[in-house]
Amino acid sequence: MGLNKPLLFALSDTKPGPKNLITDVAGITVGHKTIVTDRLRTGVTVINPCPDNIFREKMPAATHVINGFGKSTGLVQVNELGTIETPLVLTNTLSVGTASMALVKRMLAENPEIGLSTGSVNPIIMECNDSSINHIRDLGVTENDVNDAFAAAATDFAEGGVGGGTGMRCYELKGGIGSASRQVEIDGKNFTMGALVMSNFGLSADLNIYGHAIGKKFVDNKDSKEKGSIITIIATDIPFNSRQLKRIAKRSGIGITRSGSFSGNGSGEITLAFSTANRVSHFPDHELSTIQAITDDKIDRYFRITVDIVHEAILSSLAHAQTTPDRDGKPMLCLKDALLQLDDDKEALQLIADLGF
Amino acid sequence: MGLNKPLLFALSDTKPGPKNLITDVAGITVGHKTIVTDRLRTGVTVINPCPDNIFREKMPAATHVINGFGKSTGLVQVNELGTIETPLVLTNTLSVGTASMALVKRMLAENPEIGLSTGSVNPIIMECNDSSINHIRDLGVTENDVNDAFAAAATDFAEGGVGGGTGMRCYELKGGIGSASRQVEIDGKNFTMGALVMSNFGLSADLNIYGHAIGKKFVDNKDSKEKGSIITIIATDIPFNSRQLKRIAKRSGIGITRSGSFSGNGSGEITLAFSTANRVSHFPDHELSTIQAITDDKIDRYFRITVDIVHEAILSSLAHAQTTPDRDGKPMLCLKDALLQLDDDKEALQLIADLGF
Amino acid sequence: MGLNKPLLFALSDTKPGPKNLITDVAGITVGHKTIVTDRLRTGVTVINPCPDNIFREKMPAATHVINGFGKSTGLVQVNELGTIETPLVLTNTLSVGTASMALVKRMLAENPEIGLSTGSVNPIIMECNDSSINHIRDLGVTENDVNDAFAAAATDFAEGGVGGGTGMRCYELKGGIGSASRQVEIDGKNFTMGALVMSNFGLSADLNIYGHAIGKKFVDNKDSKEKGSIITIIATDIPFNSRQLKRIAKRSGIGITRSGSFSGNGSGEITLAFSTANRVSHFPDHELSTIQAITDDKIDRYFRITVDIVHEAILSSLAHAQTTPDRDGKPMLCLKDALLQLDDDKEALQLIADLGF
Amino acid sequence: MGLNKPLLFALSDTKPGPKNLITDVAGITVGHKTIVTDRLRTGVTVINPCPDNIFREKMPAATHVINGFGKSTGLVQVNELGTIETPLVLTNTLSVGTASMALVKRMLAENPEIGLSTGSVNPIIMECNDSSINHIRDLGVTENDVNDAFAAAATDFAEGGVGGGTGMRCYELKGGIGSASRQVEIDGKNFTMGALVMSNFGLSADLNIYGHAIGKKFVDNKDSKEKGSIITIIATDIPFNSRQLKRIAKRSGIGITRSGSFSGNGSGEITLAFSTANRVSHFPDHELSTIQAITDDKIDRYFRITVDIVHEAILSSLAHAQTTPDRDGKPMLCLKDALLQLDDDKEALQLIADLGF
Repeated sequence: MGLNKPLLFALSDTKPGPKNLITDVAGITVGHKTIVTDRLRTGVTVINPCPDNIFREKMPAATHVINGFGKSTGLVQVNELGTIETPLVLTNTLSVGTASMALVKRMLAENPEIGLSTGSVNPIIMECNDSSINHIRDLGVTENDVNDAFAAAATDFAEGGVGGGTGMRCYELKGGIGSASRQVEIDGKNFTMGALVMSNFGLSADLNIYGHAIGKKFVDNKDSKEKGSIITIIATDIPFNSRQLKRIAKRSGIGITRSGSFSGNGSGEITLAFSTANRVSHFPDHELSTIQAITDDKIDRYFRITVDIVHEAILSSLAHAQTTPDRDGKPMLCLKDALLQLDDDKEALQLIADLGF
Repeated sequence: MGLNKPLLFALSDTKPGPKNLITDVAGITVGHKTIVTDRLRTGVTVINPCPDNIFREKMPAATHVINGFGKSTGLVQVNELGTIETPLVLTNTLSVGTASMALVKRMLAENPEIGLSTGSVNPIIMECNDSSINHIRDLGVTENDVNDAFAAAATDFAEGGVGGGTGMRCYELKGGIGSASRQVEIDGKNFTMGALVMSNFGLSADLNIYGHAIGKKFVDNKDSKEKGSIITIIATDIPFNSRQLKRIAKRSGIGITRSGSFSGNGSGEITLAFSTANRVSHFPDHELSTIQAITDDKIDRYFRITVDIVHEAILSSLAHAQTTPDRDGKPMLCLKDALLQLDDDKEALQLIADLGF
Repeated sequence: MGLNKPLLFALSDTKPGPKNLITDVAGITVGHKTIVTDRLRTGVTVINPCPDNIFREKMPAATHVINGFGKSTGLVQVNELGTIETPLVLTNTLSVGTASMALVKRMLAENPEIGLSTGSVNPIIMECNDSSINHIRDLGVTENDVNDAFAAAATDFAEGGVGGGTGMRCYELKGGIGSASRQVEIDGKNFTMGALVMSNFGLSADLNIYGHAIGKKFVDNKDSKEKGSIITIIATDIPFNSRQLKRIAKRSGIGITRSGSFSGNGSGEITLAFSTANRVSHFPDHELSTIQAITDDKIDRYFRITVDIVHEAILSSLAHAQTTPDRDGKPMLCLKDALLQLDDDKEALQLIADLGF
Repeated sequence: MGLNKPLLFALSDTKPGPKNLITDVAGITVGHKTIVTDRLRTGVTVINPCPDNIFREKMPAATHVINGFGKSTGLVQVNELGTIETPLVLTNTLSVGTASMALVKRMLAENPEIGLSTGSVNPIIMECNDSSINHIRDLGVTENDVNDAFAAAATDFAEGGVGGGTGMRCYELKGGIGSASRQVEIDGKNFTMGALVMSNFGLSADLNIYGHAIGKKFVDNKDSKEKGSIITIIATDIPFNSRQLKRIAKRSGIGITRSGSFSGNGSGEITLAFSTANRVSHFPDHELSTIQAITDDKIDRYFRITVDIVHEAILSSLAHAQTTPDRDGKPMLCLKDALLQLDDDKEALQLIADLGF
């Protein structure tokens, strides 16, 4: 859904997609499994890039590590071959192995040739550490939870403290899943770019919204150390190749820092970008084929869109989250409640209006 | 000199060095040669990292390419060996070869063993394209100009449209050389970090100063395409190793984007960071030695300082520049004049006050 | 154990360690769990870098991806921070998630602060696809198998088709685990370098042993397509930093290609190098400290050793393997049996003698 | 010309092109300027990728740094944009700046829009240190020498100690320029791959030719330290994209090590690969277009060809060189003379026959 008032770069000739979600890119669905018990506040979010078989018809992709204090898996092969061949699963740091096995089993079931007549499969699991809110040592995510997230995948999905974002904290507020999208016309044809983030980074004092350094006004017991992360997924139907998707992925870092952060030592900031165009066949008929290409000469527009949608997805994750008890039962305020607590503060009132709270 | 009102991160425990220049790091000197004729507005800036022989006692270093539409030389070897072994020379894009030969000759003169009893030398030349202001096709920089810049090297140096920055344009205003520094205490000892930029990037509409998106209010005939670059040098006496200097260098990108830019396709954004600690001998006595190390665990402070000093150095390059005729004789406004033209605009007046104009 | 007749570079001043195994590097232990049932031939090998707590006192490390058709996990953080903080686990491709969970649980048990008062942990699991021999789709490795491998860790360990190497195939012969080591004197002190490989790559026609292109003489039904991988671990007590360990790791590729391979598209060739010197504290007392350093100026000797021990470890994995039924029950010949089948072939007889068969 | 007896990988379905030179790839020409005076033995070699304007119609390209003790320029932009936009110039290390200026002037003359209506240009100069033979401190290469090399560019060109290779030394023998090519059929169409090297690396003791470790038998006063380099250019008309060309370029390292080397600390080993297919327009008419693509699935064949042609080009550089006085007037033997000096040595006689000496 992005923001009530979208972030649009100067002189922008773009607008949000119908849902202002990554699922505005045709074929993509997103599913959550939210896990809340006495001790657990965690979950799983899956991004399913297409309704058909992605292993047999892979998608051009690239990853970018902004800061590598992270445990995401599957990046090595994406970097080499420039493709993804599985859906993407987002969960908490210590459940990466569980999610990996669930995704492997799903891929084996769908592709009986894996491990027999063809090679193996490269599961992509991305993660943040939700231990501020979740008892992460309980290893609360099961393989069934991953299956449930897949079963829930749809073009409509919730943002905020849901799915993989259930236990995430961002700028010392309740963070989680956020998304945004933009539509563009290229040579007379319509295309879409979308972003989805799992936000779990940043110190309150750094938060900036619509140009207001509002975070400085929040709460007193501030952390002194960045311990979070952010996972960013960028999807598009523009026929970028993997080199170009890498360039796009790099601009996610600018979107992140627009919200105030400086990419701290302890933050695992990892981005994966993929294109639904120019599918790459696992069993190609011919060595040579014909594909669509897009020039780098005009790529600035897509860089700017990337900055906007990643920035907006982060703020959207904050805007849609609800106040939640942290691991010790203390309330982890959501952005709305933090703004409301500032009473008659003029900047807070302005933001409450802008954000539609 | 940085800014009248320094940029200090939230909860900062640092302050600008005595000069608020990169030369606050002990041993570093900077020299300019400014070339202005009928057709030329270009020049050379050198950063001399030490008064002694840097070839024989190299310095730990790292580079980071934010966007690689650039022609800087010498990066390959820095990445492999983690050291610099020459001073750094900044000039215009088409004069890199000339500057390289001048630096090679200087190194040969100082080190008669190069090319005889020992190997060769890795000259580092960094560049931006000053063709908006300078007739760059005239190839106006000579080897003597590089020598002149070395002869002028001192701990005091000018900022703005001087030296390598003479013909540079930043956010469609007059850009050029800017610098800033910060002092910190670590385990009871005093250390310094400094940055120097040659700014030549950005579109007016993107410029942000002290939180004001003031650039949108400037001039009418805006470019639609980013064609510039920025070179960033970060220096410190903190004993970072090359891996850590790479991490530091990466944060320069955040400082740059804080000023509003999105790192456009055509922008060559390249950063080199070095430490004056733990010199690396060209002719080592022993294989094993003892050096100082600093933990990554507290590196956030230095990341934040990097963001601040790079950001401040960029604004300082704008704040110290003067209105200059561009290549076609039209005035390329400096920031001060652009602000003054906004007459009674409230934001402009605030910035004029903050910047001490 | 390496080879009967060690591979020594020209003018070598080194010799194999007492065991000619990676465990000649003080503190390192290796353990296997070999899984053989009707349908399974797979397993787990663990490399435990020290008897004490590696999470609290990490080790300098680096990785290098020779060819990235692989699914190893944990590399991102090693690249950023230059350290490992867990033991290393080697298994089959589809069991990475299971091994990851087993290692996570082990780390949680040993470090009650993880996920509570400190962040998370970066498990390193490395893999090859053993589906030529093993029914890999059965997902035959359990978390207990990983625990068993840890329980078995010792300075003595078997090579060939054992542990993670149980189902591996190398040059279309039975491959698996191999290891070798070298001792060197530096500035009057003794140091050791060791390598361990899990070999699963290469086509028969490419195999070269002691300068004999013997593979061309083997078997008739040759594969046309490289589908394997090789994992290489390099360990040393020489105080290399992570940049230098990266340079060392890169030379593993030369050791691999010395055995004949060309690093095919489908081969996941990934190397991790670490040093047991200069431990990096998770909870440092001070920001600044003093460490040992070693100059790059004489690093050629360690590059050459790396080539030798990786090359030798590969041949050792072949030399110590036994003929094994493949997934379809057909014999996958070991090197010895393949040589014996060549009857009176002169080259084969020479190799049989050289290898001590 | 490659070798009398070409190097063909096992089960090869390829053969050398008509000339067995990089110029078998249609459109490519190579020119030398050889400089020999009392004190100078150096020169320039240019690879001109096409007869038309490469700045306006760039070529897909990638670079790979095997070992970065080198001073080649222009790599940063190739890595970012995946294209080359100038011919390639090879010369000695300390003349890179001079060659750069010569190439810049040539590009300015051919493209009056550079620096006026469009941006700048990225000259690619690659180098090795020829100071064993050449008085490199004399800086003996002039801009005119570069122009002369361009004027000499043709599809026929000499190998050995000519052009940029005039002063190069390889395996402590006379090295220089070498080249080889292979033809392949893909989906019924004919394609060509070619390599050109400037060889200046390696210690005598490591040299291996056709499986003979012959270098051990050469000369007594062996160097103990690798101080050379090798530049490798790979060209093809197969429509590889820049990611695939990077993969191709990486395999050059295997070709190099096949000749015996271990990629020493002091060796600058840098490879650039480009494709003449899918030209990339500087002034594109449209953002979207249609291009040819080739699958990675069958890329092994091109990896193997790369290994063969790089390996063969190195040996060809040795095979075509002549004995030359070194910097001190002592003879630097060529391979042929070194083999002849071994008198009745059986391996030497075999190699003399194989090499057609």
